[in-house]
Amino acid sequence: MKEAIAELEAKGKAAKAASRKLAFISTDIKNKALRNIAAALLDRQNEILAANKLDTEEAKASGMSEAMLDRLILNPDRLQGMAQDVRAVESLPDPVGETFDFRILPNGLQVGKRRVPLGVIGAIYESRPNVTVDISVLCLKAGNAVILRGGKESLRSSAALARVVREAASAAGVPEGAVQFIESPDRELVNHMLTMKETIDLMIPRGGQGLIRMVGQKATMPVVTGGVGVCHTYVDAAADVSKAVAIAYNAKVQRPTVCNAMDTLLVHRDIAERYLPLIAREWSKAGVEMRCDDRARRVLHSVPGLKMAHATDRDWGTEFLALIAGVKVVDSLDEAIEHISRYGSGHSEAIVTEDYSAAMRFLNEVDAACVYVNASTRFTDGGQFGLGAEVGISTQKFHARGPMGLRELTTYKWIILGNGQVRP
Amino acid sequence: MKEAIAELEAKGKAAKAASRKLAFISTDIKNKALRNIAAALLDRQNEILAANKLDTEEAKASGMSEAMLDRLILNPDRLQGMAQDVRAVESLPDPVGETFDFRILPNGLQVGKRRVPLGVIGAIYESRPNVTVDISVLCLKAGNAVILRGGKESLRSSAALARVVREAASAAGVPEGAVQFIESPDRELVNHMLTMKETIDLMIPRGGQGLIRMVGQKATMPVVTGGVGVCHTYVDAAADVSKAVAIAYNAKVQRPTVCNAMDTLLVHRDIAERYLPLIAREWSKAGVEMRCDDRARRVLHSVPGLKMAHATDRDWGTEFLALIAGVKVVDSLDEAIEHISRYGSGHSEAIVTEDYSAAMRFLNEVDAACVYVNASTRFTDGGQFGLGAEVGISTQKFHARGPMGLRELTTYKWIILGNGQVRP
Repeated sequence: MKEAIAELEAKGKAAKAASRKLAFISTDIKNKALRNIAAALLDRQNEILAANKLDTEEAKASGMSEAMLDRLILNPDRLQGMAQDVRAVESLPDPVGETFDFRILPNGLQVGKRRVPLGVIGAIYESRPNVTVDISVLCLKAGNAVILRGGKESLRSSAALARVVREAASAAGVPEGAVQFIESPDRELVNHMLTMKETIDLMIPRGGQGLIRMVGQKATMPVVTGGVGVCHTYVDAAADVSKAVAIAYNAKVQRPTVCNAMDTLLVHRDIAERYLPLIAREWSKAGVEMRCDDRARRVLHSVPGLKMAHATDRDWGTEFLALIAGVKVVDSLDEAIEHISRYGSGHSEAIVTEDYSAAMRFLNEVDAACVYVNASTRFTDGGQFGLGAEVGISTQKFHARGPMGLRELTTYKWIILGNGQVRP
Repeated sequence: MKEAIAELEAKGKAAKAASRKLAFISTDIKNKALRNIAAALLDRQNEILAANKLDTEEAKASGMSEAMLDRLILNPDRLQGMAQDVRAVESLPDPVGETFDFRILPNGLQVGKRRVPLGVIGAIYESRPNVTVDISVLCLKAGNAVILRGGKESLRSSAALARVVREAASAAGVPEGAVQFIESPDRELVNHMLTMKETIDLMIPRGGQGLIRMVGQKATMPVVTGGVGVCHTYVDAAADVSKAVAIAYNAKVQRPTVCNAMDTLLVHRDIAERYLPLIAREWSKAGVEMRCDDRARRVLHSVPGLKMAHATDRDWGTEFLALIAGVKVVDSLDEAIEHISRYGSGHSEAIVTEDYSAAMRFLNEVDAACVYVNASTRFTDGGQFGLGAEVGISTQKFHARGPMGLRELTTYKWIILGNGQVRP
């Protein structure tokens, strides 16, 4: 174990040293590295698929579920898709070097900020081996070195991908050491990695709630936490009913297994009788189970063929990730905002209304990464918001909130240009 | 102890509840609160000074040093100064509500960011009671609630100030609960406070290195760390010698006890014989002790009347906070950058040169919060950089770097304005 930790420390040192050079290599070199990586994913597919075969065979033998297996499996099509994603990141603008807030002070000093990489980014993820490429490429484009720790089940696949990425990047002139992969499956290494504050500037966990919570609790460096989305859509008294049907339908049904899908529908009492039967019929066609409070049940009890259940207290604040929605009738906008403040996870919240003042109050008073008026919460996504690639969705408030793009993998330094100024 | 922790938790809850309202009260109310506070510091000075007298008498009896006592003592002049500082913050623009990065997507969605408060800020500080007012006022102006934990020696003074601040803010319409003060001197409360991740969005430690390190290690929420400045000035081969003398003199002598003062002077070998005797004579008039490497000593041994000592390895990377400077002759810009990367604390670093390419390389390659060309590092300060008030100087990379103003006490939320859009 001591040896493995020494090796991890050595990888950290190498990544830190590489990050110093990576910080100021040209966009051309970074883009060339990304093109090389995209090409190598296809050129070296035999090597990658052979490693993946060992992982999947072992997983099958150990009785892994079909859903988990599907996450693990690589094939030529998937490698093609990964290569395309890499080229998409190549085409994004380089965030590094942007200068902003520049001004000339009365004493002639020019003071401003320049965007620079964060340094070394740690990534801890679970079974999907493609995260290896995904995170490496985003980090490299933003000028960061990366230390990768993949899941045990996909260790050989991820190691092969990391090797391909490292060698392809290196051939383009990216400093040696910029991409580090931890090969040992020992869990103690994760614990040690989370204490390497002096080396790792930011930790990104990718996976289930358990992993994200564990990293959030143990990490000594900043962590981008996110992933849990308990999202509400509030249909106000002054909602346009047809918009409200379309938005709630989309937010719940279009892709129910992701974090920006709606979990709870809040409906103002004055519109409940008109609105609830309409959305309930649409949802029931899609197989949505409605967990209703008493007032919603009273409105809906005469509608035939609904999948309806009593809501319990546990249903509020639950991220269902399935075709299930909590439904609650509220007396006022205030009650809706209060409910969201109590049960929301600070991810994405929407109001549907034609009432200007209600819309403004909702925008002001709801504290979440993304606050919507008259649109589906399903838009919370780096791609949809025009960021290009997405590193993740942050539900913490520090540094970055909501969809994180390349820019959020950077920081800034102050640049001060003088001609001999001293402080009086 | 259990009771004190329950009380702390209750204060945290109250602060959180207040922060939700504080997030969207008007600038007018916040400014009125600040005017009230400034007035109350003078109107209620008897009450404040009486509390301070108890603290100082106890401190004297316990044999506190004069320097420490000076930090603790309040008097009418100092209260006047504090009131003026509060009015200065009142006059700054409100950072909350600024919208930026707004764009209209092809589907008609308007997407942008709005600046909002962080929420609840924790402050842990040592003997200076004025920090109570300073931090409260900055937090309130940026729309944050605050939980204050002052030093044991100034507990009565800080409690009196917190009471005055709270009542004055409340009278202006700031929500009850926005300013919380922990009255118990028990250290266990600090440990508990550092675990209150769900309540406290950001922790600001103000005090000595011991406090800052302890908070950085134990806090589970984000922390603004800073304060340690190991700052270098590199005099390049192509430096203008008179600028280099003025800049190094100012950086070391103008106020040696603060974090942006110079600690180590690096001099290119080609200019050492011309430059070092000049700065050495100026420094020696000011009483600066020079801890020189062998090459610098060889240049300076014939200059009479210098305070000179052999540099040891420990002198590189030491923050002297005194009239002491390390002096080292280097062979190249590369060696200077390498030395800074190894020994610097990421605070403020300067090059003096007329060589354009050397200046550009230094700006690019030195990784620090503030990187200077041809100016004194003493300018690293929120006031000097035009931020108005300064919350602190951050030497970490996340969220904010270098001088932090009001804006750095905020975050943003995404605002999405639609007219019925759903995701295809």
